[in-house]
Amino acid sequence: MIRVGIVGATGYTGEELMRILANHPEAEVRYITSESQTGTEITKVYGHLHKYYDGVQLKSLQDLAEIAENTDVIFIGLPHGHAMAIGKQLESYDVKIIDLGGDYRFYDTAVYEKWYNVEHTHKDAKAVYGLAEWYRDRIRDAKIVGNAGCYTTASILALAPLAKAGLIDTKSIVIDAKSGMSGAGRGLKLSSHFTEMYDNFTIYGVTNHRHTPEIEQALTEFAGEDVIVNFTPHLLPISRGILSTCYADLKEGVTAEDVDKAFADCYADEHFIRLLGRGACPMVKKVRGSNFCDLGWHIDPRTGRVIVVSAIDNLVKGAAGQAVQNMNIVFGLDESCGLQQVPLYP
Amino acid sequence: MIRVGIVGATGYTGEELMRILANHPEAEVRYITSESQTGTEITKVYGHLHKYYDGVQLKSLQDLAEIAENTDVIFIGLPHGHAMAIGKQLESYDVKIIDLGGDYRFYDTAVYEKWYNVEHTHKDAKAVYGLAEWYRDRIRDAKIVGNAGCYTTASILALAPLAKAGLIDTKSIVIDAKSGMSGAGRGLKLSSHFTEMYDNFTIYGVTNHRHTPEIEQALTEFAGEDVIVNFTPHLLPISRGILSTCYADLKEGVTAEDVDKAFADCYADEHFIRLLGRGACPMVKKVRGSNFCDLGWHIDPRTGRVIVVSAIDNLVKGAAGQAVQNMNIVFGLDESCGLQQVPLYP
Amino acid sequence: MIRVGIVGATGYTGEELMRILANHPEAEVRYITSESQTGTEITKVYGHLHKYYDGVQLKSLQDLAEIAENTDVIFIGLPHGHAMAIGKQLESYDVKIIDLGGDYRFYDTAVYEKWYNVEHTHKDAKAVYGLAEWYRDRIRDAKIVGNAGCYTTASILALAPLAKAGLIDTKSIVIDAKSGMSGAGRGLKLSSHFTEMYDNFTIYGVTNHRHTPEIEQALTEFAGEDVIVNFTPHLLPISRGILSTCYADLKEGVTAEDVDKAFADCYADEHFIRLLGRGACPMVKKVRGSNFCDLGWHIDPRTGRVIVVSAIDNLVKGAAGQAVQNMNIVFGLDESCGLQQVPLYP
Amino acid sequence: MIRVGIVGATGYTGEELMRILANHPEAEVRYITSESQTGTEITKVYGHLHKYYDGVQLKSLQDLAEIAENTDVIFIGLPHGHAMAIGKQLESYDVKIIDLGGDYRFYDTAVYEKWYNVEHTHKDAKAVYGLAEWYRDRIRDAKIVGNAGCYTTASILALAPLAKAGLIDTKSIVIDAKSGMSGAGRGLKLSSHFTEMYDNFTIYGVTNHRHTPEIEQALTEFAGEDVIVNFTPHLLPISRGILSTCYADLKEGVTAEDVDKAFADCYADEHFIRLLGRGACPMVKKVRGSNFCDLGWHIDPRTGRVIVVSAIDNLVKGAAGQAVQNMNIVFGLDESCGLQQVPLYP
Repeated sequence: MIRVGIVGATGYTGEELMRILANHPEAEVRYITSESQTGTEITKVYGHLHKYYDGVQLKSLQDLAEIAENTDVIFIGLPHGHAMAIGKQLESYDVKIIDLGGDYRFYDTAVYEKWYNVEHTHKDAKAVYGLAEWYRDRIRDAKIVGNAGCYTTASILALAPLAKAGLIDTKSIVIDAKSGMSGAGRGLKLSSHFTEMYDNFTIYGVTNHRHTPEIEQALTEFAGEDVIVNFTPHLLPISRGILSTCYADLKEGVTAEDVDKAFADCYADEHFIRLLGRGACPMVKKVRGSNFCDLGWHIDPRTGRVIVVSAIDNLVKGAAGQAVQNMNIVFGLDESCGLQQVPLYP
Repeated sequence: MIRVGIVGATGYTGEELMRILANHPEAEVRYITSESQTGTEITKVYGHLHKYYDGVQLKSLQDLAEIAENTDVIFIGLPHGHAMAIGKQLESYDVKIIDLGGDYRFYDTAVYEKWYNVEHTHKDAKAVYGLAEWYRDRIRDAKIVGNAGCYTTASILALAPLAKAGLIDTKSIVIDAKSGMSGAGRGLKLSSHFTEMYDNFTIYGVTNHRHTPEIEQALTEFAGEDVIVNFTPHLLPISRGILSTCYADLKEGVTAEDVDKAFADCYADEHFIRLLGRGACPMVKKVRGSNFCDLGWHIDPRTGRVIVVSAIDNLVKGAAGQAVQNMNIVFGLDESCGLQQVPLYP
Repeated sequence: MIRVGIVGATGYTGEELMRILANHPEAEVRYITSESQTGTEITKVYGHLHKYYDGVQLKSLQDLAEIAENTDVIFIGLPHGHAMAIGKQLESYDVKIIDLGGDYRFYDTAVYEKWYNVEHTHKDAKAVYGLAEWYRDRIRDAKIVGNAGCYTTASILALAPLAKAGLIDTKSIVIDAKSGMSGAGRGLKLSSHFTEMYDNFTIYGVTNHRHTPEIEQALTEFAGEDVIVNFTPHLLPISRGILSTCYADLKEGVTAEDVDKAFADCYADEHFIRLLGRGACPMVKKVRGSNFCDLGWHIDPRTGRVIVVSAIDNLVKGAAGQAVQNMNIVFGLDESCGLQQVPLYP
Repeated sequence: MIRVGIVGATGYTGEELMRILANHPEAEVRYITSESQTGTEITKVYGHLHKYYDGVQLKSLQDLAEIAENTDVIFIGLPHGHAMAIGKQLESYDVKIIDLGGDYRFYDTAVYEKWYNVEHTHKDAKAVYGLAEWYRDRIRDAKIVGNAGCYTTASILALAPLAKAGLIDTKSIVIDAKSGMSGAGRGLKLSSHFTEMYDNFTIYGVTNHRHTPEIEQALTEFAGEDVIVNFTPHLLPISRGILSTCYADLKEGVTAEDVDKAFADCYADEHFIRLLGRGACPMVKKVRGSNFCDLGWHIDPRTGRVIVVSAIDNLVKGAAGQAVQNMNIVFGLDESCGLQQVPLYP
């Protein structure tokens, strides 16, 4: 059994790791931490976990050495800026780290420093970017995995096949993404207050959301040329789910079949990517609670654009599910091990 | 492997059976039927089932004999009135039947005929009432299980310990229940139209809902005296979940500890019943997607009443989950086999 | 023009007063206050008020004397405990006070002190209870109006005709009420966090909600005998609306026609009460944004109970709308003046 | 008083006309029609209208001549294809027509025929396009107004100032729009079924939605050159509201101030357009129930794009509200007459 520690367990990504790992046949949660609620039983924080984590108490980061010595992998579910300190501290420990924040996602830490406005303190980390379908070969041997972000997973999975096949103008990309409110976290703020957001819909982070450079890093790598995008996030009045609508100009002469082939070439054998096909319209509820990414695409002969649409559950494929998928890769398990949750529909 | 047939697979209870059985280690779905969509692949009807039921086509009831010969158990997810015909037709087949409708829930078919306003055509059926926690001894040997209704499961589980222990005035019971919209089914009607019900809440079926006699039948049996109740259903603008608020006058001299003990005596060892305790307030989202029933209770010394509150997912513990639990009982499996879905929260 | 001040304008009741008064032909808002956001323009706090309150800044309670001297009526939208200090301070000013909190709702301040757990510091206030339909004769000459609470308005309007006509057993009353989340206010707390409450439903305040004694005070007065009730609130995952389901035992010999007559006698001429009739099922969305209270009722011959169902918008008839109705009464206007908002459906 | 007829009154646009006109000081509804519910009282169809339209019965189109003779204006709330027959039939009557469908929106009926796939039978109609802010001079004298569509109103209002000022590349426009479910109408279909759409979000009509040519027609006119766009609609799980996110490449040398000025030049004096400013993020709930269009815009120096965001209530500014605004123009009233509904927030 893989022994698991979860640092920052009271946020939604931590909670979701616990939900998924409760039934994982090859892993078990040994430690969970929270600085604000140290000593509390997790079922007092998340009542839905009764019968799975009865009696399990939250530890503190002060116990980090003990945790590292008694676990095989530590998931970090803290706000950005904290994981790099932990990663540095655990360099000499024989424990893998999967960080669900932004600290270890960038090849060039200067990009991180610019967009996150904080100094990177672990620049020589042996970290790899944790988008499982595209980087599993690197993830396999990683000490630290910088788990891909939620919006970025939805957006990169949608556009990567076209970027890689060289079918689109890399300067023409517009990504209009919509996320459920769990993406805004459990921290209290007026913009996440029920009465404010119910029966509402809004836009935010226009031109400056931190997932932008992460998307550009990956697409630049696949395209082999600089990619610069407009990424625009919106907030949906639902709990879970991201739908990403991605626009790009097709290069001259590219056919619909070329586009179809690009998706099939990349994803036909991927368990967690469901190719709904050309003309298909994904829905977030059809992936709710699961690790799937549903993809549909459309060609517009009038404008010469391709529109790719992806749907994921932001807490699963966009966070905890992909983190477990990465853990499975790191420990040589089948990628879908423990991730067979059927979408909860309706 | 238990070979399963699902008759009426395109309704929400049929869909939910497929979701649960997709990961059941001891059962597999062999046949699914729909009269309105015979021949269609189920993934065209329920896209979220992609990767689990790819290529599986809906059969017709005309294939019933074939289905009965090649399955061990048939779940029926049809509107009331249809199951009794099927049950009669399959009397000589070596196949178990678990009906999720109302046809086989009543000891006295005259009660069924009165409340459902239809003649019962299978009065000599060897059927038992399928509320797993209270009738597992009978279910074990049943040919036909009349799976308990959604509201009834929530309500009986809440009140049965008090009725059995003789703590409440059996003429004083008021059950005020609230259900998510999936309980109204997938059939199109204005009252289930999104724009009509969103940001809305309403009451219906006051004094005449068909789950009333089912609740009375069970509580009468446990109390050993005639129980008559007011059961009032309401529609919540959510997908899943029932919360049932049950009021009863405590008999003279009954203490809070007596009430606590009644719940502990009945449910302390039940896997699917989570006793949140006296003063606790269940929430429907904390059981969403799972087979749990959460219970909390309150004593009001001012009025002498006890208020018991139960929460279930109407499609799981209130329908498909309990049906699988009943299947597990019938086939000698552990009751929780294949039913370990952790509630999907948040 | 009636000159209006609103103390505590940044809460939802304050906001709602501004919404309603923006179009009131005989009143205009002259002052609004907030201690936490003094000096801020109200349109920064509530962007929907652009074009109605452009440039209007929030004042402080420190300006209370100035406000009192330049207004005819002051609405107080503060948490309980604050209004009585203000009321005392303004005793000598020629300004009416309409308090939307609990401070001035009780004849017997000992009841207030017991349920609100705070000392009442303005026991000799000339205050009247502000349930417009039942107390307009007193309200007309009041200095201070203790505007009725949201749950209480829905519950008293439902049961008062039966209590007054002596048709029900006053010890048998059970009120099961459900409220939208705006009733929990704009203050941040986990239980009002979007992701926690969306697709959720829960119960709270069982046996001890502060609206209980307010309901009992009114029904006791109408019935002419001590009324004691179980009042149980629930939280609906919607913004606005209360639906109150009220159960009571009918006295021996009471007929359905007696019940019908009781409602007609009390409400046939009331503008804001819409008698949907016996057998009718009110919906909260049909009163959304309006000052109406919709009523339906049901007789259960099996149990001898009557079930009365009321629906209001908690922020309008349950707070700001009724407060304006009370203002209209105090200043001799037609009660519906400025309150002609048609319900916003769908 | 302007005497009003509403043809097709049982759809949501018809209902919304009744809601708005109930309080219009210069107009009154004289006739309403429905073919499916002729003879029914409208309050049986829309219970929220009690106290405003008590006793008013639905007529039939067979009464059209009578209606035309006794009204000054007829609003048509029927599916496309029906209005042109009515318009032709009423050519000789002294009554104005405001059609809320697509029949009279196009200068070139061939465009209509291509996108709507139906023959236009009233090609010589004296119709004008009913986007009030941009066409009021033409609307003033029109016999027939083809009221602008919901998505189109949100999209054109967002982009027209930039097109008119020549600031954007007219081939670069991408419009990603999101609408509440009332936009899908009251007709029953699975995609509008509560349980299917709740906690869901989806895309539809990619590359082929009928509002595309309407947007192109207007923007082409303002830009003075052919505009071709990608318009992509999505369905929000809310009742009302459209948010339209519009992307375009800025022409070389265009500054942020140029963009600001374009909006101010066009809209500074418009009552129903609220310029939230550069960097602002509109929300649909802040216009709910009102005739406002909120606008915010963003410049991205990295990509050279401008992103304009508009929010409207699809049933008000996107349908019935704008229709009343057009009526006000036609009859020489102040445009905001009867349209002073404050947004219903929260």
